Amino acid sequence: MAKLIRKRRGSPAGAPPGTLTVSPDAVAPRLRALAYGKDRIEEVEGPDLAGIKALREAHAVLWLDVTGLADIDLIQRLGEVFGLNPLALEDVVNVHQRPKAEEFSDHIFAVVRMVQANTGADTEQMSLFFGADYVLSFQERPGDCLESVRERLRRDRGRLRQQGPDYLAYTLIDAVIDGYFPVLERYGEEIERLEDAVIATPDRRQVERLHVIKRDLLLLRRAIWPMREMINVLIRDESPFVSSQTRLYLRDAYDHAIQLMDIVETYREIATGLLDVYLSSMSAKLNEVMKLLTIIATIFIPLTFLAGVWGMNFESMPELGWRFGYPAALGLMVVVAAGLARYFWRKGWLSDDKPPTKN
Amino acid sequence: MAKLIRKRRGSPAGAPPGTLTVSPDAVAPRLRALAYGKDRIEEVEGPDLAGIKALREAHAVLWLDVTGLADIDLIQRLGEVFGLNPLALEDVVNVHQRPKAEEFSDHIFAVVRMVQANTGADTEQMSLFFGADYVLSFQERPGDCLESVRERLRRDRGRLRQQGPDYLAYTLIDAVIDGYFPVLERYGEEIERLEDAVIATPDRRQVERLHVIKRDLLLLRRAIWPMREMINVLIRDESPFVSSQTRLYLRDAYDHAIQLMDIVETYREIATGLLDVYLSSMSAKLNEVMKLLTIIATIFIPLTFLAGVWGMNFESMPELGWRFGYPAALGLMVVVAAGLARYFWRKGWLSDDKPPTKN
Amino acid sequence: MAKLIRKRRGSPAGAPPGTLTVSPDAVAPRLRALAYGKDRIEEVEGPDLAGIKALREAHAVLWLDVTGLADIDLIQRLGEVFGLNPLALEDVVNVHQRPKAEEFSDHIFAVVRMVQANTGADTEQMSLFFGADYVLSFQERPGDCLESVRERLRRDRGRLRQQGPDYLAYTLIDAVIDGYFPVLERYGEEIERLEDAVIATPDRRQVERLHVIKRDLLLLRRAIWPMREMINVLIRDESPFVSSQTRLYLRDAYDHAIQLMDIVETYREIATGLLDVYLSSMSAKLNEVMKLLTIIATIFIPLTFLAGVWGMNFESMPELGWRFGYPAALGLMVVVAAGLARYFWRKGWLSDDKPPTKN
Amino acid sequence: MAKLIRKRRGSPAGAPPGTLTVSPDAVAPRLRALAYGKDRIEEVEGPDLAGIKALREAHAVLWLDVTGLADIDLIQRLGEVFGLNPLALEDVVNVHQRPKAEEFSDHIFAVVRMVQANTGADTEQMSLFFGADYVLSFQERPGDCLESVRERLRRDRGRLRQQGPDYLAYTLIDAVIDGYFPVLERYGEEIERLEDAVIATPDRRQVERLHVIKRDLLLLRRAIWPMREMINVLIRDESPFVSSQTRLYLRDAYDHAIQLMDIVETYREIATGLLDVYLSSMSAKLNEVMKLLTIIATIFIPLTFLAGVWGMNFESMPELGWRFGYPAALGLMVVVAAGLARYFWRKGWLSDDKPPTKN
Amino acid sequence: MAKLIRKRRGSPAGAPPGTLTVSPDAVAPRLRALAYGKDRIEEVEGPDLAGIKALREAHAVLWLDVTGLADIDLIQRLGEVFGLNPLALEDVVNVHQRPKAEEFSDHIFAVVRMVQANTGADTEQMSLFFGADYVLSFQERPGDCLESVRERLRRDRGRLRQQGPDYLAYTLIDAVIDGYFPVLERYGEEIERLEDAVIATPDRRQVERLHVIKRDLLLLRRAIWPMREMINVLIRDESPFVSSQTRLYLRDAYDHAIQLMDIVETYREIATGLLDVYLSSMSAKLNEVMKLLTIIATIFIPLTFLAGVWGMNFESMPELGWRFGYPAALGLMVVVAAGLARYFWRKGWLSDDKPPTKN
Repeated sequence: MAKLIRKRRGSPAGAPPGTLTVSPDAVAPRLRALAYGKDRIEEVEGPDLAGIKALREAHAVLWLDVTGLADIDLIQRLGEVFGLNPLALEDVVNVHQRPKAEEFSDHIFAVVRMVQANTGADTEQMSLFFGADYVLSFQERPGDCLESVRERLRRDRGRLRQQGPDYLAYTLIDAVIDGYFPVLERYGEEIERLEDAVIATPDRRQVERLHVIKRDLLLLRRAIWPMREMINVLIRDESPFVSSQTRLYLRDAYDHAIQLMDIVETYREIATGLLDVYLSSMSAKLNEVMKLLTIIATIFIPLTFLAGVWGMNFESMPELGWRFGYPAALGLMVVVAAGLARYFWRKGWLSDDKPPTKN
Repeated sequence: MAKLIRKRRGSPAGAPPGTLTVSPDAVAPRLRALAYGKDRIEEVEGPDLAGIKALREAHAVLWLDVTGLADIDLIQRLGEVFGLNPLALEDVVNVHQRPKAEEFSDHIFAVVRMVQANTGADTEQMSLFFGADYVLSFQERPGDCLESVRERLRRDRGRLRQQGPDYLAYTLIDAVIDGYFPVLERYGEEIERLEDAVIATPDRRQVERLHVIKRDLLLLRRAIWPMREMINVLIRDESPFVSSQTRLYLRDAYDHAIQLMDIVETYREIATGLLDVYLSSMSAKLNEVMKLLTIIATIFIPLTFLAGVWGMNFESMPELGWRFGYPAALGLMVVVAAGLARYFWRKGWLSDDKPPTKN
Repeated sequence: MAKLIRKRRGSPAGAPPGTLTVSPDAVAPRLRALAYGKDRIEEVEGPDLAGIKALREAHAVLWLDVTGLADIDLIQRLGEVFGLNPLALEDVVNVHQRPKAEEFSDHIFAVVRMVQANTGADTEQMSLFFGADYVLSFQERPGDCLESVRERLRRDRGRLRQQGPDYLAYTLIDAVIDGYFPVLERYGEEIERLEDAVIATPDRRQVERLHVIKRDLLLLRRAIWPMREMINVLIRDESPFVSSQTRLYLRDAYDHAIQLMDIVETYREIATGLLDVYLSSMSAKLNEVMKLLTIIATIFIPLTFLAGVWGMNFESMPELGWRFGYPAALGLMVVVAAGLARYFWRKGWLSDDKPPTKN
Repeated sequence: MAKLIRKRRGSPAGAPPGTLTVSPDAVAPRLRALAYGKDRIEEVEGPDLAGIKALREAHAVLWLDVTGLADIDLIQRLGEVFGLNPLALEDVVNVHQRPKAEEFSDHIFAVVRMVQANTGADTEQMSLFFGADYVLSFQERPGDCLESVRERLRRDRGRLRQQGPDYLAYTLIDAVIDGYFPVLERYGEEIERLEDAVIATPDRRQVERLHVIKRDLLLLRRAIWPMREMINVLIRDESPFVSSQTRLYLRDAYDHAIQLMDIVETYREIATGLLDVYLSSMSAKLNEVMKLLTIIATIFIPLTFLAGVWGMNFESMPELGWRFGYPAALGLMVVVAAGLARYFWRKGWLSDDKPPTKN
Repeated sequence: MAKLIRKRRGSPAGAPPGTLTVSPDAVAPRLRALAYGKDRIEEVEGPDLAGIKALREAHAVLWLDVTGLADIDLIQRLGEVFGLNPLALEDVVNVHQRPKAEEFSDHIFAVVRMVQANTGADTEQMSLFFGADYVLSFQERPGDCLESVRERLRRDRGRLRQQGPDYLAYTLIDAVIDGYFPVLERYGEEIERLEDAVIATPDRRQVERLHVIKRDLLLLRRAIWPMREMINVLIRDESPFVSSQTRLYLRDAYDHAIQLMDIVETYREIATGLLDVYLSSMSAKLNEVMKLLTIIATIFIPLTFLAGVWGMNFESMPELGWRFGYPAALGLMVVVAAGLARYFWRKGWLSDDKPPTKN
């Protein structure tokens, strides 16, 4: 089950905007630089600031990926080196941001939320800065869905190496969005399984599972919905840092985000509908149980009463002395039972309301 | 039941945009060319690229229909011949697209989703490219609802042969939309049948069926809703490839798409309302069952108690020796039973709450 | 119960647009011409085409009303005489249209849906064409709510005779809209009756009736909602066939359509709320039944057990020989019963949860 | 309970627009004129037309208030005197109008709906005309919430006497809107009471009351919602009859109308939520009842069976002759009962699920 | 539980706009002035009007905070000193305002609603006026979430001291919005607790608590939603009193408000979903209870009947004299019981439908 609540502010309430405060569960940062142009590519693990500057100068595009946000100093120095907006930097360390994009005078700042196959609906914030010759990405934790992008850069497949940082930023955003599809597919498969199960053998645990699924989908929607808007801002705003060709690709990412929303909403409606199926199954089962009880009770209670009558100890109960009194009594009981059974059979209780092949 | 989940990507996650990857369940392609002008028409099964070029030059309009997407090479070569946008081509083979229309510099690309009478809510993607002198259509599987369009072309009925490719594209889109009506009618007929059945003889299987219908309608809505928007894009954008007269016809198709949405929404609301009817029927039936049990139990339990009292073996139970003790006891039992029956009759339990002619 | 499904297409699927095909349940047409100006009026039943032309020339305004759509030839010839758009004519015979208005170069085409007091939620399509000097109306079946308009024309009351065809068209649309009010009032009265009934004596048939009402209101909404939009198109579009004064009157009709929607929505919400009342009533009744059963069972089952104990045939059961054993046993039973009754009385079961004056 | 249905038309269906027809339950009119300027004020009960003209000439502003709409003649003559639009006059006598504002060439026409503290959700139509030097108000029935406005005029408090008719019209509209607050507060108080009651002692009558409240709030919403739009029209339209300063005040009235909508919606959602609380309470109570029944039945039914076994009359039942047969039998019964009680205790049925302090 | 109803008007209904009337539960005012510029800051508790004027002249920015609204005179005099709009002043004392912002010729008026950690969903109105050199804030009650802002002013941290009153106003609004996060976090934590509890041990009190939470969230939404709009007005309107830099910061506050709405809506949907889980748990538990009852009754009622038969006192019941009559009878009973148990076991009633680890 995804966590519902995230502590919002690392910084103490009332701190001035632009104050960076480390979040208690931040991990130590790991830097990775990938600098490339059309013809060559250089990859450096854990570069220092001087190394970063050198890489930036030597190549057309520098992608600096920072994983872990525990080192405020480092982030601030990076902010100075790349001239990043302090308000945006605050958003980087306060990892509760809704996805959004903001244009500043010399760079664009975008926030996306990333899922991973094994983390379900728990999303991780990735903050992106990109300017004329760099992309800076900040992630909360190690592990991401960007390995394929790195591979493409290394192997020089496609047009990635020939394009500017805006195209790299698009590629990262698209990879993050694509990362939602397998997660949603898993939810879809579970919903399909639950559909069959709720119909075949309704069970309380299914409802609990449906609740958790609906809640996770709600959290995923909260992450996906504003990404749609975020991409739209990148497409619409006439920023010099986004080329018109990249805008075309972003339209494709926008379509994918809408598709995600579509899937999330469809799944939520199906899950809600399943609850109704469950309740009606329970209601049908209760009816079935009560019918059985009623049939048994209605047939035997009068018979037991008759047996009780002839078990009374009155002295003058002439029928007790009759020769065929006992068989007659048993016969009467059979008649009563048969009459009642016939009554239930005519009501359709003895055959109806139970699917023949299931349960 | 329509499949809920479709594997989204044929291409591996992280592949560069524009990469075409064959989907695992794609079928081998079959080409069919129909080239025509006002006066003549030529139909070729399985033309090669040279043949396609020849047909395109010889006639005013060429309609090339590709059924089956397993041959990536062929699709790429067609893309080169007609100058199609690579991003659009990727959408052709990734058959999970929402309906949409995009204008490129020298052609228009549109995606629609097609149902067939016998496939229910499972939709098949049809991708359309049309430019100055051709319409290119890609379908996932053999079998479509376009045979009547082919017939109209062959028989020269109506204005179809005299118009350009935009009118043919409209005709195809309209045929696809018209294909939804019989499918929806079948759902409507089933809902009408279920309405009668839920009222007459509520049954758990009806709820399951209603759930499946609601879910299928949800999937149909997901296919229809963006088609409305797609047609709107074709009408609104001032593309040179859509004549103003065709725009008028597209308005008609737009009306049909809205009508489809109307029907889908109406059916979904009725199906949802039927669940309430079912639940209230079950609730009424349970009440009926419980009343019967309560009547029987309430009448016989005190009588059985009385019989039990006089069945006790105390030595000094004077009434047991009375001459009319036994008849008096039976009489008392009759009085008690009659009193209780009268109580239930006054409460209205013996007649009420059960429709006279049903169940 | 209104019919849920209407066969959509008279014409075979795939027929070219503009093909007129007679619907299977169309009735034979009856023509009625009403031609008038400020000073005179002429009324002709069943005019031929020549007569229509003569009337059109002799008077300021000609209203030709065609009831019954079985004669495609006639409709096509009328289309030629008045120069009507073929796409619009197709909509005339395909009587499944949503209300809409379309402006053509020399006339306006409007579709409305008409109810009649005795047909409930079943709507009939009326198609209107109006140009510079005529109004052409097509109805599906005999019987309409336009008789009062004819009367006003004949008696020269109000401004109707002095105005052009746009004002007559407005008058017809307004009469159609006004025709919904008595139908909705009937639903409103039934809902009020059901409100009282559901509270006083909840019954399964009420739920079925509520379902039918909700469904009919849904169908009525489907007819009314687009009429609003249709009138809006007439008001907004700067058509030369609608005078600015008529626009003012159309604003009034627009208000009425909104009022209708208001009423439909209010009724639907009340009907939905009533289902909740029904379910809670059933739930309360079930509780009441179960309480009665539980009281009876809980009081008598222990007593019957006691009687059973003293009815056992053990040889040495000393209390059976006691002199006051029997009265003591009866006394113990009374004490147990009184204690249990007191327990239920303190729980409030013996008085609570039942409205004092009802049921 | 507010009346759901209002007969819509006084005028017969199909009457020409602008026909005034008296509604069957209209009351005889009473006129009241209040004419004032900065320095003096004159108040006349029941003025005739001549007196009205004189007052209008002698003072800066004339407020003529007509209560009761039974006298069509009078209304028509007033319409002539003030030059009122005939369509608007028809709306005055057809007291089913939604609130709206319309601008005519020489006056503004506005319809509001008024509640009174003691009439609940039943609203009364007030029609307002205001031009350069007059305000004309038409009410359905005696009794209104405008007395405070009259007092303010008489006592010359505030700026009312120095302003034009637009400010008076604003004041009347604002007084009508303010009149909703106490009515809504009463509903709010009842909802708060019901909240406590449903939680403490759920009862079927509460559901019925909640239904009535929801329905009344629905009717109030229907009256308030279009008033918002109506005020907006007055603010937005650049009418010469509304000064820019009055527009500022109207913005305040607009805020109040939005606040009313806010409250209505909040109350409706809370009332809907309360139904869920009720149903879950009933469900919990039913569970409690059934548990009691099950405990009693499960403990005593086996015991009664045992007693029945030893009450059988077989000749050779050795245990019946044992010396301690009877105590042993009783002991066995105690053991069985204790075992079952222990089972229920471990299941938590003997203590759980019942709030300790309530019920 | 937050109070649902607030008496709306201090002023009597119908009082002229701009009349200030003290609300019955207003507290006596306490003034606090904080005047500052880049270099110095002066703080005065309870200044008089002359002191206020002096402070305003001596410093760049004056923040006058008035806590308690019981002294109408004081408020009016402050209004004169700062030239505040009388309609706005009326909104200050009528503490039922929705958050809003209005621009006047020489100042901006904004209303926000403030929560405090310990007051839950009860919001307090804070009214803000700010002009060229001052911020005036009015609060209803002592205690607020602004202490951190005061601290920042005193300690000269951040840019607060160097900026104008618009930045201070932004800081106050942002502090108020930030104040909602801990309150919502508390609700979120409670919902998480309830989620576990409803699944583990469903209980009626949880539903009541969920109702209260939903209702409080509704009230919070009512406070937060218009704040979003209010900030938007400040950003969008080209007021000279809001610098373009402050606008940038307000965008940040706007994001926070949207985030709050997001959280509120997510929580409400989860709480609603939990009610379904509760109901389905109750339904499952009822089924379980009824199954137990039915098993016990169905097994023992026939046995008891058999015992009753052989307890009858007919003279000629040959089996009673058989040698192995008694064991045979007992054997038959065992067979019947075993047969029924087997029947229930095959139905899956003896094991199914109960989560293994939870009750």
